[in-house]
Amino acid sequence: MGCLIFVVEMTTVSPAPVSPRPVSSASSPVTGRIWTSDLAAHTGRQVTISGWLHHRRSLKSVCFLILRDASGLAQVVVDDPSVRALAESLTHESVITITGELVVSPQAPGGIEIQHPTVTVVSAALDEPPVELFRPELGVQLPTMLDAAAVSLRHPRRAAIQRLSAAAAEGFRSALRAERFVEIATPKIIGTTPEGGANVFELDYFGKPAYLAQSPQLYKQMMVGALERVFETAPAFRAEPHATSRHLSQFVSLDAEMAFIDDHRTVMAMTTTAISGMTAAARALELERTYPDLLVPDVPEVIPDIHFSEALGLIGEATGEDLSAEPDLAPAHERWLGEWARREFGSEWLYVTGYPMAKRPFYTHPDPARPQWSNSFDLLFRGLEIVTGGQRLHRYEDYLAALASRGIAPEGFEGYLMAFKHGMPAHGGFALGLERFVAQVAGIANVRESTLFPRDMQRLTP
Amino acid sequence: MGCLIFVVEMTTVSPAPVSPRPVSSASSPVTGRIWTSDLAAHTGRQVTISGWLHHRRSLKSVCFLILRDASGLAQVVVDDPSVRALAESLTHESVITITGELVVSPQAPGGIEIQHPTVTVVSAALDEPPVELFRPELGVQLPTMLDAAAVSLRHPRRAAIQRLSAAAAEGFRSALRAERFVEIATPKIIGTTPEGGANVFELDYFGKPAYLAQSPQLYKQMMVGALERVFETAPAFRAEPHATSRHLSQFVSLDAEMAFIDDHRTVMAMTTTAISGMTAAARALELERTYPDLLVPDVPEVIPDIHFSEALGLIGEATGEDLSAEPDLAPAHERWLGEWARREFGSEWLYVTGYPMAKRPFYTHPDPARPQWSNSFDLLFRGLEIVTGGQRLHRYEDYLAALASRGIAPEGFEGYLMAFKHGMPAHGGFALGLERFVAQVAGIANVRESTLFPRDMQRLTP
Repeated sequence: MGCLIFVVEMTTVSPAPVSPRPVSSASSPVTGRIWTSDLAAHTGRQVTISGWLHHRRSLKSVCFLILRDASGLAQVVVDDPSVRALAESLTHESVITITGELVVSPQAPGGIEIQHPTVTVVSAALDEPPVELFRPELGVQLPTMLDAAAVSLRHPRRAAIQRLSAAAAEGFRSALRAERFVEIATPKIIGTTPEGGANVFELDYFGKPAYLAQSPQLYKQMMVGALERVFETAPAFRAEPHATSRHLSQFVSLDAEMAFIDDHRTVMAMTTTAISGMTAAARALELERTYPDLLVPDVPEVIPDIHFSEALGLIGEATGEDLSAEPDLAPAHERWLGEWARREFGSEWLYVTGYPMAKRPFYTHPDPARPQWSNSFDLLFRGLEIVTGGQRLHRYEDYLAALASRGIAPEGFEGYLMAFKHGMPAHGGFALGLERFVAQVAGIANVRESTLFPRDMQRLTP
Repeated sequence: MGCLIFVVEMTTVSPAPVSPRPVSSASSPVTGRIWTSDLAAHTGRQVTISGWLHHRRSLKSVCFLILRDASGLAQVVVDDPSVRALAESLTHESVITITGELVVSPQAPGGIEIQHPTVTVVSAALDEPPVELFRPELGVQLPTMLDAAAVSLRHPRRAAIQRLSAAAAEGFRSALRAERFVEIATPKIIGTTPEGGANVFELDYFGKPAYLAQSPQLYKQMMVGALERVFETAPAFRAEPHATSRHLSQFVSLDAEMAFIDDHRTVMAMTTTAISGMTAAARALELERTYPDLLVPDVPEVIPDIHFSEALGLIGEATGEDLSAEPDLAPAHERWLGEWARREFGSEWLYVTGYPMAKRPFYTHPDPARPQWSNSFDLLFRGLEIVTGGQRLHRYEDYLAALASRGIAPEGFEGYLMAFKHGMPAHGGFALGLERFVAQVAGIANVRESTLFPRDMQRLTP
């Protein structure tokens, strides 16, 4: 059969247009398009797919194209010489539309392939991409990968990790909505900094100094008075002066706060519910079918817990260190506890409770029985802290005392303190960084790889 | 019967403890608590509710308490003198727990009330609240209401509006997830300002100048290359130097972007899907049962549309104004079109398409047939623009030309332009401000009332 060439703002090469198609459909590649993930239902039929030229492999008699769309990959076999000539002239990442016969082919990836295709160039890539997207791993240094984010994020594994992140965020929301939590949106530009001036970005707000919020803490507490149970999923900002692998200047803070708790243990139970929602939603993606290491772990119904003082005792005993005066857990201690929880309880998750009051923020509720310890907790996952939470003070006088004892002036906090003057029940909440959660679930060593366009001391673009 | 008084860190007054309860439950008000909205299923039984003292009305023989929790209100009838003495000593907004007999009472609001109660003070309010929360409308000036946000947001109508907002945001997400959109989170701190320096907040980023993002536009376009269909619900920032009733310095921007469109009409269809999801989720709250004016309107399956030039013609004809050189619609013109759409199509919704290229941002795609007009649209709801969207350029050369013709240097945009160098399909998207949507649906005149803690030129607290 002869070979026909359409040129309708695009270059189309077709070996054998089985059914003639109107010219307008060539300029509307979306019409009749099938997502590659849905192809299996259409074997034996003429199909049209659109996407990016992910990879090309030329053999003697045929040329294989791998087309990538957001849902997956599809193999296309080109044998017609004129179509092949066009296909071999294309730069990787050119956007193309393929129409051809979908056939079962046991040796093809996924067991199907498109044969005798028409190839239409929708949008030609001008250069070869700066990273090789068809490789199983990008295999470039982090700065290269991040500089080329517009292209490197197209890598199927990086796209999968973004899907994991999106599912986790939605799992958080839906688990909490099911528990009567209401979503809120709070100010990210604030006039006073509750944690003091350290690590806060300052900005010019119509001539007045203002700050980017490090957390919605004070606002979510105020909203407890109105809605009892609230959550927010929004960016938070920290001017981290250290280039560590676990800190970002901007991160997605998943925050929740609830009223009428007994103490921090009520909050811990709700944290477990939220985390279970996140992992369940992420697991439903079945990413392990493509990436076995992206199998999302289950959360046990009850997560073991240990008091901070006991934890320090265990670590001290095991390592010989004198930790009796330690106010916090060092990363190495968290890792030790992670191993311990795995050995002792078969759990990748561990709550550490009762951190010393001295290191916790002013709104922290003390343990009534032992006031040097707090009604607070961290949740460790695989030896890294991923959630911080606890009970908060709820009496006005306790706030005045807590601020005074830390030398913080109550000015600037009037709008917040008003909530406690006018009746607040015992309440508490928790926060977790989405990027850190994703990094830990997916085994990503540097948290920058678990977000799209990271911000740190050195990086403000893209 | 005698009267018993527990004092367990709290003041409890009980007229007749029908079944003796262990002391520990008095200090755990959460145990066995029933939400007021769930009471109806428990008539004839002993129930415990917790919440805020919303209102009190003292008659000669009895005293009525209205307890408010996040789910609603419940009436409590106090007749025992000692319980009444306690009840009448309480400040409004004190947090209390009530245990008593739930009985059907046709004259009570909701048809049920609690009789012969125990009243336990969980957390006494120190002062009477600065606004009267029991009134159907707060009835105070906006600045008073906003200064007292920690209390005024407890007003049931304000809480209902926040629920409406939360439902709308989730309706947006779930409608788009059903269409294969993936949630993304993009940087709010950026190194260059795509819209030029106007109305942008500047901040100090580790000694370098940086800006707060006015929109995720460039990032969502870049992500189209990786995931084809993306959305984000996140704060956006505009340094609005005008104190109008429809602008905020920070707002929740609901953004979406999609690949493989025919033109802006594909985006309009998806906008209708998203808006329908928002209104359906908000309508499911049935807020009109309490607030008839909060009935959330339906979205027609097909929203009428009119080209910008035609719209100007109609308005000019009707008003006698010469609008032929107008590059945009004034608020009065939008209102006129809103009335027109209602008269002409019985629709509260109207798309205006084809705005002049001159007033649209550099990434706007022209109408191929009439390049002075754009492939863009606004969606008007009740005569106010609530969505802006359109097709974007997708060819690298077109971007270089568009930037050059506007005198914008391509420096600082390299990371963005890289996406177009490496193959991008026809794409487009839309954005809407959540607060403006909520204000327009709920008939709120000032957008500040449709958000919790608004930010404007004058307001940085609470």
